[in-house]
Amino acid sequence: MAEDHEVVVFGVWGSAYSRRVETALKLKGVPYKYIEEDLSKKSPSLLKYNPIHKKIPVLVHNGKPIVESLVILEYIDETWQGGYPLLMPKDPYQRALARFWTKFIDDKCVPAILNAFRGEEQEREKAGEELAELLKLLEKELEEKRFFGGENIGMVDIAANVIGFSLGAFEEASGVKLMTREKFPKLCNWRDEFMSNSAAIKENIGPSREKFISFLRNYLRNK
Amino acid sequence: MAEDHEVVVFGVWGSAYSRRVETALKLKGVPYKYIEEDLSKKSPSLLKYNPIHKKIPVLVHNGKPIVESLVILEYIDETWQGGYPLLMPKDPYQRALARFWTKFIDDKCVPAILNAFRGEEQEREKAGEELAELLKLLEKELEEKRFFGGENIGMVDIAANVIGFSLGAFEEASGVKLMTREKFPKLCNWRDEFMSNSAAIKENIGPSREKFISFLRNYLRNK
Repeated sequence: MAEDHEVVVFGVWGSAYSRRVETALKLKGVPYKYIEEDLSKKSPSLLKYNPIHKKIPVLVHNGKPIVESLVILEYIDETWQGGYPLLMPKDPYQRALARFWTKFIDDKCVPAILNAFRGEEQEREKAGEELAELLKLLEKELEEKRFFGGENIGMVDIAANVIGFSLGAFEEASGVKLMTREKFPKLCNWRDEFMSNSAAIKENIGPSREKFISFLRNYLRNK
Repeated sequence: MAEDHEVVVFGVWGSAYSRRVETALKLKGVPYKYIEEDLSKKSPSLLKYNPIHKKIPVLVHNGKPIVESLVILEYIDETWQGGYPLLMPKDPYQRALARFWTKFIDDKCVPAILNAFRGEEQEREKAGEELAELLKLLEKELEEKRFFGGENIGMVDIAANVIGFSLGAFEEASGVKLMTREKFPKLCNWRDEFMSNSAAIKENIGPSREKFISFLRNYLRNK
């Protein structure tokens, strides 16, 4: 049984939230069993481990479930130390900033991306402009850093996979380019670095990119 | 100047989020300067310290701003250790659970409370039923514990001030009782313990209760 594994991840292939959990585990070198969920027919295990939200991703560690991708990331960071630099900074102020930006990405950027590509046609342009304002803030936050986490991929970088991966896939599927190199040179460099950084990222994001774009293309066409 | 103080809190008297920050500082015994904001005319300081969200509460520590009440609470816990037990548990799994429940309170319970009392009249009953389902989950989580944090008020208790304080004020102002002792005996006991627990809580929540109820009564009447 899958549950016999020490670490199990319940996810969905196209979910950026699932990918965050896998990215963190891979960076940390933690072996795990991945279980693909069918959200139209949720498994008894998913309902057992996440009875409140009934959502992926779920990390099950020694039989104990943890849910919500950002909560899972902090759990992974606190549980498996060593091997890879900590995903969270050590300084309390820097930790607060990391939590601020991950929340900013989830509460502000994710809805803006969805509205800009999946919203009603007449609202998409405005949503795109709003997204551009948010991206400007991330562009500024990057400053001269290689990653949001500094020299290494950290918590904010992993959360920003919705910018580093999903946004680009939406752009490619729709033919609408919002994060141009001209307007967002630092974010674009960051994306290149992030996407090509390590086997943990490449193996985790790379292979499903074409499948995801094809899925989105079909989805946007039939909307 | 207020900014000369080591610790400054920008808040609004009726905001449960502001009260969270003050509760944590008081429990920890951290002296601070409180600045009441007028949200209809935000101060240059607020806009300077929280240029992205332009919201209260903001904690400014040695000139550095921290925003988002849950982020501030973790910052306070990590920065001022000793004096009062840690607000967050030490065990990574228990920490993940605490983060899960604080997020549950903000993402699920807060909108449900607002909808149940401030929503369109025909939607309030349904919202009240949804809120009752959420309260059942909190009732179950409390089990036989005195506080969500165990023997002491912790992170989840402070976040649950929206249940411990705000919900009761809405109930009293509207005359609609949702969290009855019959249905939620543990949550009601917890609320009594929480509200009367220590000077940190009482001084911080007590004095403005009547003012808040009066404000809500007026607000609901003129809605």
